[in-house]
Amino acid sequence: MNYDSQIDKALDALHSEGRYRVFQDISRINGRFPSANWIDENGDKQQITVWCGNDYLGMGQHPAVIAAMHETLDVAGVGSGGTRNISGNTVYHKALEAELADLHQKEAALLFTSAYNANEATLSALPKLFPGLIILSDALNHASMIEGIRHGNCEKHIFRHNDVAHLRQILETLPANAPKVIAFESLYSMDGDFAPIEEICDLADEFSALTYVDEVHAVGLYGPRGGGVCEQRQILDRVDIFNGTLAKAYGVIGGYIAASTRFVDAIRSYAPGFIFTSSLPPAVAAAAQASVKHLKSDNSLRIQHQEIAAQLKLRFKAMGLPLDDQGSHIVPVHVGDPVKCKMISDRLLKDYGIYVQPINFPTVPRGTERLRFTPSPVHSQEMIDALLTAMDALWSHCELSRLKTSA
Amino acid sequence: MNYDSQIDKALDALHSEGRYRVFQDISRINGRFPSANWIDENGDKQQITVWCGNDYLGMGQHPAVIAAMHETLDVAGVGSGGTRNISGNTVYHKALEAELADLHQKEAALLFTSAYNANEATLSALPKLFPGLIILSDALNHASMIEGIRHGNCEKHIFRHNDVAHLRQILETLPANAPKVIAFESLYSMDGDFAPIEEICDLADEFSALTYVDEVHAVGLYGPRGGGVCEQRQILDRVDIFNGTLAKAYGVIGGYIAASTRFVDAIRSYAPGFIFTSSLPPAVAAAAQASVKHLKSDNSLRIQHQEIAAQLKLRFKAMGLPLDDQGSHIVPVHVGDPVKCKMISDRLLKDYGIYVQPINFPTVPRGTERLRFTPSPVHSQEMIDALLTAMDALWSHCELSRLKTSA
Ligand SMILES: Cc1ncc(COP(=O)(O)O)c(C=O)c1O
Ligand SMILES: Cc1ncc(COP(=O)(O)O)c(C=O)c1O
Repeated sequence: MNYDSQIDKALDALHSEGRYRVFQDISRINGRFPSANWIDENGDKQQITVWCGNDYLGMGQHPAVIAAMHETLDVAGVGSGGTRNISGNTVYHKALEAELADLHQKEAALLFTSAYNANEATLSALPKLFPGLIILSDALNHASMIEGIRHGNCEKHIFRHNDVAHLRQILETLPANAPKVIAFESLYSMDGDFAPIEEICDLADEFSALTYVDEVHAVGLYGPRGGGVCEQRQILDRVDIFNGTLAKAYGVIGGYIAASTRFVDAIRSYAPGFIFTSSLPPAVAAAAQASVKHLKSDNSLRIQHQEIAAQLKLRFKAMGLPLDDQGSHIVPVHVGDPVKCKMISDRLLKDYGIYVQPINFPTVPRGTERLRFTPSPVHSQEMIDALLTAMDALWSHCELSRLKTSA
Repeated sequence: MNYDSQIDKALDALHSEGRYRVFQDISRINGRFPSANWIDENGDKQQITVWCGNDYLGMGQHPAVIAAMHETLDVAGVGSGGTRNISGNTVYHKALEAELADLHQKEAALLFTSAYNANEATLSALPKLFPGLIILSDALNHASMIEGIRHGNCEKHIFRHNDVAHLRQILETLPANAPKVIAFESLYSMDGDFAPIEEICDLADEFSALTYVDEVHAVGLYGPRGGGVCEQRQILDRVDIFNGTLAKAYGVIGGYIAASTRFVDAIRSYAPGFIFTSSLPPAVAAAAQASVKHLKSDNSLRIQHQEIAAQLKLRFKAMGLPLDDQGSHIVPVHVGDPVKCKMISDRLLKDYGIYVQPINFPTVPRGTERLRFTPSPVHSQEMIDALLTAMDALWSHCELSRLKTSA
């Protein structure tokens, strides 16, 4: 066995398909988000503007969040010292869970080390609770949901993205008395489009299925208290299980589910991905709680966020860039070619000090390669102007076509 | 469908088998480990001594570790802002990976949000690199390894715990030219016994298999620089892939693998559990690096750790408590009855302010229920005396048998 040559083969496949990932070395500068230091191939440091972060509101540098972390660090030390069951269960974890349950207006919440783990652990445990379970999964669900569903080893059906008619069609073929879960996202992060949540919930009612909704790219950002798209649409009670992250709009790390006390108790008891791993450091839990709490009352960041996203989309469209505006805060500019997508990204970084990671297959389907911009309240008017100028020049340079502008 | 009654059924099963877990609310007190605050059912706070934490050396309160976290928090803010590929790759992550590669004398290391994720993501990705892979797995491997192996969906064989003859027997039945990985732990955390690493590596050589070793309960604690059991035995080069945690002896959170550059590059590129999740906060990475670095040069904590473990084992044995001494730092006292195990644990906590979580099925096989003590350099002589007094009284109270003492 030549293991090295087999590994080389696996790596060569990525290179030849143009999907070998090169990580950029980026370090954000506290107090000056979205500015960051970038270290280039030669080890030289340069200050740049991050346009693809998922700390959508800049909460990772919010004084209340940083203060909570400093304070708890001094009181409790760094690590938790154990799993939740064996010495790693603290008041900080419990307080955060209560804060999250309240956010989604559910009886209980359960903290995981990430939303990836929350999805994987919860979805894979469902068949243990509901023997004979059938999961219905949106075709564009996130990798963590796909993995969780796969690992549960139960019957599953994929419905076409956001296609309620197709979902109904599948439901009609399934045995009426089998337990069913419909799993989808409220807001899809690569296209920025929203799910037809109400219609899916109607179908769930009609076919007595449970609903599992990933609000990872919506929590903190939508709804009067940051409870996500379902809070905004006042349909929190129509969803059975919410999944969310503390690593994006909340600017920290960690993930969770929110649901009934009974459901949370069962996942807590049955999911290996929850049971057999060290819990988050108390200081991380405290920072996350400070962030969630702050965004429950401060609506101004959410308003600014939407305004700046609207402005950026308007100006891109005025330039004729192909942008599919779905009304959310995510601004994906369609390139449709992995090489050009990477080239524009490289030039933006090197020539303009603007960082936006190219999004290529397998994160998105081939032919839909894009630059995904994430405007935030910490992006200044000058930064937006600089981005527009750079994109205009590079778009022409790469001879990419423009749409007839409506502006 | 009555989903609630199905969940109740799943929970009732746990209650009736006596394995429903009740979390104790414990908050460690920085600067005073292993002292912690315990909140009882009535919400009353009491100061207790933790005897079951996995922060084996108290590094979670080490000034160098705390300082690194404070400093990086001020420089970089809280969250990383993204996945490693999309804006979440920082100098702190890279520096920690270099520190870990050096620790294990490997070319490279790859950071995950936990060792659970490192095991799950790496083991499940192996069959993508090595088509036709066969995994050989020790019967007592940790849940995270078992899950990873299951999720990879390749052929697998379980060999009896630490049984090299059985492993050989299985290897002899397998096709000579199939790729193979032998996965095991260097030190098993529930019994405290070591694997016959050299013999397993001999077999790996003979049958050209790769070796994958989880050193989660050994890193920081064994070897002149804390490189684990394989460093202590000077066989670092005989293992192909190491797995370790930053959440136990290093007192922080996070996990990693260390291996060849090529192997790490492939896992980085192929494992969804690495790719599709936010990276650890820079301040967490910096704290972990400070801890790893400190323990590379400070041998005194390791020496004290072994001394105090030896003392505790000696004194338990002198009292006739059934203790299987495997020569490691883990001190499992055999109870062999889930109800009594829980009862002693409850009484220790309530009457003596001593916290040790009962370890019952499914963490260990039925009939082997135990109290697992984790002595550390931060446990004082008075704390040990108090523990011995309490255990002596409760052991008699529960009418548990004692061994004829050799002392
Ligand atoms: C839809 C969705 N769900 C879950 C996750 C995982 O979140 P986390 O970074 O907390 O693991 C992500 C992104 O990382 C995501 O985009
Ligand atoms: C042997 C072993 N491997 C892996 C893990 C997971 O480590 P982490 O807590 O970093 O997820 C644990 C315990 O938690 C363990 O005991």
